[in-house]
Amino acid sequence: AHTTHTHASTRHQELLCIFGTGDLGRSLGQRLLQTGYRVVYGSRRPHSCGLLPQGAQVRSHAAAAEPASLVFICIHREHYDFLETLAPHFKGKVLVDVSNNLKKNLYPEANAEYLQRLIPGAHVVKGFNTLSAWALQNGPSDANRQVYLCGNSAEAKEAVAEVATKLGFTVLDKGSLSSARELEDFPLQLFPEWRLPLRLAFGLTVFFFFYLLIRTVVSAYVEQGKDISFRIMASLANKVFPIVSLIMLSLCYLPGVIAAFLQLYRGTKYKRFPDWLDRWMLCRKQLGLLALGFASLHVLYTLIIPIRYYVRYRLNHTIPFDTTMAWRTDSYYAMGILGFGLYLLLGITSLPSVSNALSWREFSFIQSKLGYLTLFICTFHTYLYGWDKFLWVSGYTWYTPPGYMLSLVLPSAVMLLKLLLVLPCVDRSLTRIRQGWERSDPEDDSKNSLLT
Amino acid sequence: AHTTHTHASTRHQELLCIFGTGDLGRSLGQRLLQTGYRVVYGSRRPHSCGLLPQGAQVRSHAAAAEPASLVFICIHREHYDFLETLAPHFKGKVLVDVSNNLKKNLYPEANAEYLQRLIPGAHVVKGFNTLSAWALQNGPSDANRQVYLCGNSAEAKEAVAEVATKLGFTVLDKGSLSSARELEDFPLQLFPEWRLPLRLAFGLTVFFFFYLLIRTVVSAYVEQGKDISFRIMASLANKVFPIVSLIMLSLCYLPGVIAAFLQLYRGTKYKRFPDWLDRWMLCRKQLGLLALGFASLHVLYTLIIPIRYYVRYRLNHTIPFDTTMAWRTDSYYAMGILGFGLYLLLGITSLPSVSNALSWREFSFIQSKLGYLTLFICTFHTYLYGWDKFLWVSGYTWYTPPGYMLSLVLPSAVMLLKLLLVLPCVDRSLTRIRQGWERSDPEDDSKNSLLT
Amino acid sequence: AHTTHTHASTRHQELLCIFGTGDLGRSLGQRLLQTGYRVVYGSRRPHSCGLLPQGAQVRSHAAAAEPASLVFICIHREHYDFLETLAPHFKGKVLVDVSNNLKKNLYPEANAEYLQRLIPGAHVVKGFNTLSAWALQNGPSDANRQVYLCGNSAEAKEAVAEVATKLGFTVLDKGSLSSARELEDFPLQLFPEWRLPLRLAFGLTVFFFFYLLIRTVVSAYVEQGKDISFRIMASLANKVFPIVSLIMLSLCYLPGVIAAFLQLYRGTKYKRFPDWLDRWMLCRKQLGLLALGFASLHVLYTLIIPIRYYVRYRLNHTIPFDTTMAWRTDSYYAMGILGFGLYLLLGITSLPSVSNALSWREFSFIQSKLGYLTLFICTFHTYLYGWDKFLWVSGYTWYTPPGYMLSLVLPSAVMLLKLLLVLPCVDRSLTRIRQGWERSDPEDDSKNSLLT
Repeated sequence: AHTTHTHASTRHQELLCIFGTGDLGRSLGQRLLQTGYRVVYGSRRPHSCGLLPQGAQVRSHAAAAEPASLVFICIHREHYDFLETLAPHFKGKVLVDVSNNLKKNLYPEANAEYLQRLIPGAHVVKGFNTLSAWALQNGPSDANRQVYLCGNSAEAKEAVAEVATKLGFTVLDKGSLSSARELEDFPLQLFPEWRLPLRLAFGLTVFFFFYLLIRTVVSAYVEQGKDISFRIMASLANKVFPIVSLIMLSLCYLPGVIAAFLQLYRGTKYKRFPDWLDRWMLCRKQLGLLALGFASLHVLYTLIIPIRYYVRYRLNHTIPFDTTMAWRTDSYYAMGILGFGLYLLLGITSLPSVSNALSWREFSFIQSKLGYLTLFICTFHTYLYGWDKFLWVSGYTWYTPPGYMLSLVLPSAVMLLKLLLVLPCVDRSLTRIRQGWERSDPEDDSKNSLLT
Repeated sequence: AHTTHTHASTRHQELLCIFGTGDLGRSLGQRLLQTGYRVVYGSRRPHSCGLLPQGAQVRSHAAAAEPASLVFICIHREHYDFLETLAPHFKGKVLVDVSNNLKKNLYPEANAEYLQRLIPGAHVVKGFNTLSAWALQNGPSDANRQVYLCGNSAEAKEAVAEVATKLGFTVLDKGSLSSARELEDFPLQLFPEWRLPLRLAFGLTVFFFFYLLIRTVVSAYVEQGKDISFRIMASLANKVFPIVSLIMLSLCYLPGVIAAFLQLYRGTKYKRFPDWLDRWMLCRKQLGLLALGFASLHVLYTLIIPIRYYVRYRLNHTIPFDTTMAWRTDSYYAMGILGFGLYLLLGITSLPSVSNALSWREFSFIQSKLGYLTLFICTFHTYLYGWDKFLWVSGYTWYTPPGYMLSLVLPSAVMLLKLLLVLPCVDRSLTRIRQGWERSDPEDDSKNSLLT
Repeated sequence: AHTTHTHASTRHQELLCIFGTGDLGRSLGQRLLQTGYRVVYGSRRPHSCGLLPQGAQVRSHAAAAEPASLVFICIHREHYDFLETLAPHFKGKVLVDVSNNLKKNLYPEANAEYLQRLIPGAHVVKGFNTLSAWALQNGPSDANRQVYLCGNSAEAKEAVAEVATKLGFTVLDKGSLSSARELEDFPLQLFPEWRLPLRLAFGLTVFFFFYLLIRTVVSAYVEQGKDISFRIMASLANKVFPIVSLIMLSLCYLPGVIAAFLQLYRGTKYKRFPDWLDRWMLCRKQLGLLALGFASLHVLYTLIIPIRYYVRYRLNHTIPFDTTMAWRTDSYYAMGILGFGLYLLLGITSLPSVSNALSWREFSFIQSKLGYLTLFICTFHTYLYGWDKFLWVSGYTWYTPPGYMLSLVLPSAVMLLKLLLVLPCVDRSLTRIRQGWERSDPEDDSKNSLLT
């Protein structure tokens, strides 16, 4: 940044032009002024176009573009047409297309490509559009640090990169203008990596809700004509949430195990994983966080039990005291609490700023070692809940197993597989594979490993 | 930074001078040394001035200033006078005033301006004072990334900017030395943006506390001579907190609605909002977080109910079971839990590192869409609490409505207004206005929109 | 970055070479390509070495090293020997050793030093090894922003620093190649600053567990032959956790108080603190967070009380109602809740991104003022729990005081000492000392203070 600074001073504060006095235009201008540039706005009504950052000049579009070698286009694509009339003024200048659309695939071609087509004489560069007006005004912050650029002229990109760098951003060159579409779609994404996990969570919730609804409420009504529909709000929810949570948690460790076995089977780590596995691996964090969310709801639902009208009503103390029962329930609760505590710890360490502050080894220690411990404790918690109910025939209403039993299948499987993987012999060869060894040609093992 | 690196190497490690061996001076020196500068400290007792970063030299003030072209003044303003005696040594040099005061407006003029007056021959630059010694020692971190500079000489600012950039900071030029006061006040601020919300929260809490105190404890004592003062600690608090929380939450969505109506009424977005509305909009986040705090307290207070001596004492099961009652209370609790869950989600996404990781669209989706959902569920939760109590005359002790009724006024109003805004016709024209369209001269609508 | 950009374009995209096609090599290459470099991989099997970032070339090691002036060595140390054969190709080139080991002190000398010994003709620079493959691929993020370099040739370090800067990282020069060992140990650290606090927490937990086990379960069995072992899971845990939490919290404020008294006693702040005190001060944050963890567990354990089989069983309402009792228990719970609330606030503000967003004054206000308030409320909470039990002889089973009494000793002491420190007279002289005044020679106080 320093050098650009000196440039700035030597060439007596470079002048930049901005078309459009909307939020984006204003914020950009303000930031440019702060950083030491001179700014001139192009406007249809130079004398009545709302409030602009002080220090900036305002002129007619033509007059504004004239002195500047670089023009930011902060206008909606719908109004580009009028720019065509200014084409001669743009000859050989750098036009930075900052525009975004309201929806994807609204237009056949990207805004920047459209602009280039309108004004062939100018060097169009797409960029800055991934930043919020807020980031433009207040400078780079954690995720708003990177500016993506693309364009056909290297010189033009250099010029824009210089400005971006001086504003404190890091520049990433995304190649030719043909990547403009990609850059314009970026800010329109809405939690792409959350979609799969959310769908999964929704599906599981719905399934288990109806499954349990039939087992409890419906069956009770059909067989004994009892209306216990009110249980839907609390009791049922408090059955569904922990089940979904446990399943999601195990789903977030399953792909890792599968990948390991795949590598063992193939005897190399240089073969690509199938796409579905890749996608699955990439949304493990989201799976885990959703699991945490359901677990938290489960905790809250559990804690209100004694306040519930229904429960208070039913309390009775006529049964004799049974120490085993006390042991069982208490350890059941204790496991639940410890499990939830670890759950929270995992959630906290997956906060960007926290995970960034951890060394790679620390992060993986928490997410893998403590993660499996969480899975184990939560599963154990569920087993304690079941206790000997497995044997009671009465539990299998209409020949369906209770929900918590179903929820135990997956986590138990995952932990079993993990156990296999940590067996010394298996672990050893897996480590070697991950260090680059390949079964294919064992004779020159050492050379092979160079590839790691 | 690279270029400055090369410079550094070419001119064989530039030498910088630091006056003052306090925490700030030491931290700054250490960081400068790490980054490849040579550092010399100016001290009254070169041979006995505590521990300094190794690699740094120490000399008398005069001897230290001599070889350096840039001197950092890390001394308390009280002791500037002695610098006057060194004026000749400072001729044409750059002095960086890093000092801060203990209080605002302690002195008629800013420290940096005072320094400039003492040593007219030097180029004084104010800067680095907004950074903590910690940030200076360990390099830039999220919010400690920006260095604000101001001074009358562009060249001097360039020189300091070069150092700052090499240390990894981003530089923001705040103009001439007259802004020094502003820079010196910055580190003295104590939650300026929290003041209004905190006052509001305090006011509401006090009001509702006494309001309910009179309605419950006092009236009970006066009318039935019963002493239920002990309820103040838990029952009363658990009435006040949710009420304040709900009101604060609606207060954080009210300004947005008002702004929208204002824009609709004015038919343009280019007129400035009244100041009170601007200020209100700027502290919405704080209002929301305080609301979350009160909600959390409400949750904890609710969860201890069954542990409370008083409640355990009163438990009785003589009443017949009533399904409607079960439905009502259970859904009441369920709504509370879900509302609180969303509340937490909003809180988590307003953590700097999380909100930074979200795209602009994702952030606004959560804070606005999910925000209104939270408001709705929490209000519904309160209505369920009221149920048919609205009709009971007995509820209106001393002709005052119960607290939760008062708390329902504002949120209901906000949601009603929001409903009006999302009506297709209203929504359409609002969107057009926000895209820059102005009612003033409808004939050339298209041109107008260029301004956006 | 801009200048490096221009360089890049002028010298038609500099070519860099990478040895090793493992995760690290691949990630690094991908990032380099994105930033505008050309990349060639050195591999034993140029035609079959897994998937490489598109745009990169692959050649034999010798052919790859030839055209590049800078070679990244992303190979495990075990296989360096083969590099010796390539020594002639490396003449005068810059070799960046990115390697890490699996354990500390695995080898007599650091990898980079070993590499330099193998290829004396090359300029070896150690660097980039502290970054995760993730950070290399996705660019700098909060804690992954800094690249540490060390090497014997300044020019070589400059060249690497240029690349690092262009990738968006901040460079820290750690001096000669002899610091390589330090850089290679860095990524192997596992929570070094957490070790002491964790040991402490573990020790305290174990001690109080057995202490209370003997007092309650064992004594009950020995004296009345009653088996209440089931209490271990919940009741006992819920006694141990709050005790440990309170002690840890006070331990995190004790060192500050000690330091203050030490400064008062010495009459200066320029004498170094004893090492044990320094170490203690450095892990205060961790102590506090662990205390928060235990407090959270305490809260959860307390909230499940009414759900517990044992408690439900014992509920009885035959005792007459006692207002004092109601007051006492309710305020006991209220204090607990408020204390926990503040506890959480402290925890949240110690999240990196949050504390970074605070000004120095705001941070210290929360961590010190609110911190002491938390300590006070939590201690008060414990005193309310004790109430008049101090006087009951029956409480002292086997002549041992109840656990909570022991837990009260330290916090009470800390608050007493703090009270002494805030006495006007003491506070005044402490402030003066912290501003640099020294008792040693009071006559020239003013000059002295220059050192601050």
